Amino acid sequence: MELDRLDRQIRFVVEIDKLKTVLRRTWLTDRSRRENSAEHSWHLALMAVLLAEHAAGPDLDVLRVVKMALFHDLVEIDAGDTFVYDEQAALDKPEREGRAAERIFGLLPADQGAELRALWEEYEARRTPEAQFAAALDRLQPILNNYHTRGAAWQQHGVTAAQVIARNRHMAEGSPALWEYARGLIEDAVRQGMLERGPA
Amino acid sequence: MELDRLDRQIRFVVEIDKLKTVLRRTWLTDRSRRENSAEHSWHLALMAVLLAEHAAGPDLDVLRVVKMALFHDLVEIDAGDTFVYDEQAALDKPEREGRAAERIFGLLPADQGAELRALWEEYEARRTPEAQFAAALDRLQPILNNYHTRGAAWQQHGVTAAQVIARNRHMAEGSPALWEYARGLIEDAVRQGMLERGPA
Repeated sequence: MELDRLDRQIRFVVEIDKLKTVLRRTWLTDRSRRENSAEHSWHLALMAVLLAEHAAGPDLDVLRVVKMALFHDLVEIDAGDTFVYDEQAALDKPEREGRAAERIFGLLPADQGAELRALWEEYEARRTPEAQFAAALDRLQPILNNYHTRGAAWQQHGVTAAQVIARNRHMAEGSPALWEYARGLIEDAVRQGMLERGPA
Repeated sequence: MELDRLDRQIRFVVEIDKLKTVLRRTWLTDRSRRENSAEHSWHLALMAVLLAEHAAGPDLDVLRVVKMALFHDLVEIDAGDTFVYDEQAALDKPEREGRAAERIFGLLPADQGAELRALWEEYEARRTPEAQFAAALDRLQPILNNYHTRGAAWQQHGVTAAQVIARNRHMAEGSPALWEYARGLIEDAVRQGMLERGPA
């Protein structure tokens, strides 16, 4: 039997509660526990509102960036969080996440599911100003939390400054200002001994 | 020394990480733990995007609702979460939260702090369509999580259906459709023995 539109939307709303149980490598600033992907997504959406003025180009569609931030990690409900420095896990990430998107966005009414899936694909492709800015925020937030936990996750996983720079330099596409800020934090983290410099 | 604009914004972004440690009475749908206010805010913001078509009036400013959802609980960093059925704690809630708003929004550049504080006050006053719709979502989400945990928080705190209806009927201002949906869940929860009916 065809579910009513509101029933389908609510079914999705209930399903995504599970994102609150997907743990990331990042620690909360008080180091009490690791962060989950739902609260991480909240942090990014809020940063999109606050920091939009630092985006690379003018005329950014802030609502679009906020939506990307809210929805960008939903696929992790099925696919799990892939650590940005895990090159092995990156290999099958597109396939795992594609299957997850199929199922999860498929819970919604068809028009809404298609719209949000397209938005997620736009985010992943990182070719529009909104996607590039959302992706910059997604990189800045863990750098901030790492810096304010004296490098907890960097040290735990043996990540070096060279890796942090290599994996995050695309931030400059979305926001030169925020990438410059992040560069300053990375340099300071090395200076303070929170982060190994690593190979040049 | 006057902090640079971006420094003030980042200071705020780091400060609000603390919302992830403020616990609500609501349980996650898998009953593994109580929900925190940051992930709750994420859930509401996402619901604002998904369910805007069910708002009471036309021409809803969705970005405004999303912002309210993202920022509405920040005062809890200082003031703590006030359980909606705790009448004693409700007495000094405005004073506690007012002081918190002063400090927390005061971390931002003045223009941005004033704008977001005004938005929070608009949300609290519940007089605009955006505030009424955001408030309806803020009531629907815990009802969903209660229903899908077979009434965990209701039972833990001895809450009755009569109280749930009294404290949530304002949902109808923001969205008659969502209030009708919630009414159906409440009725079904009583029927299934998850929720005591309580005094008429």
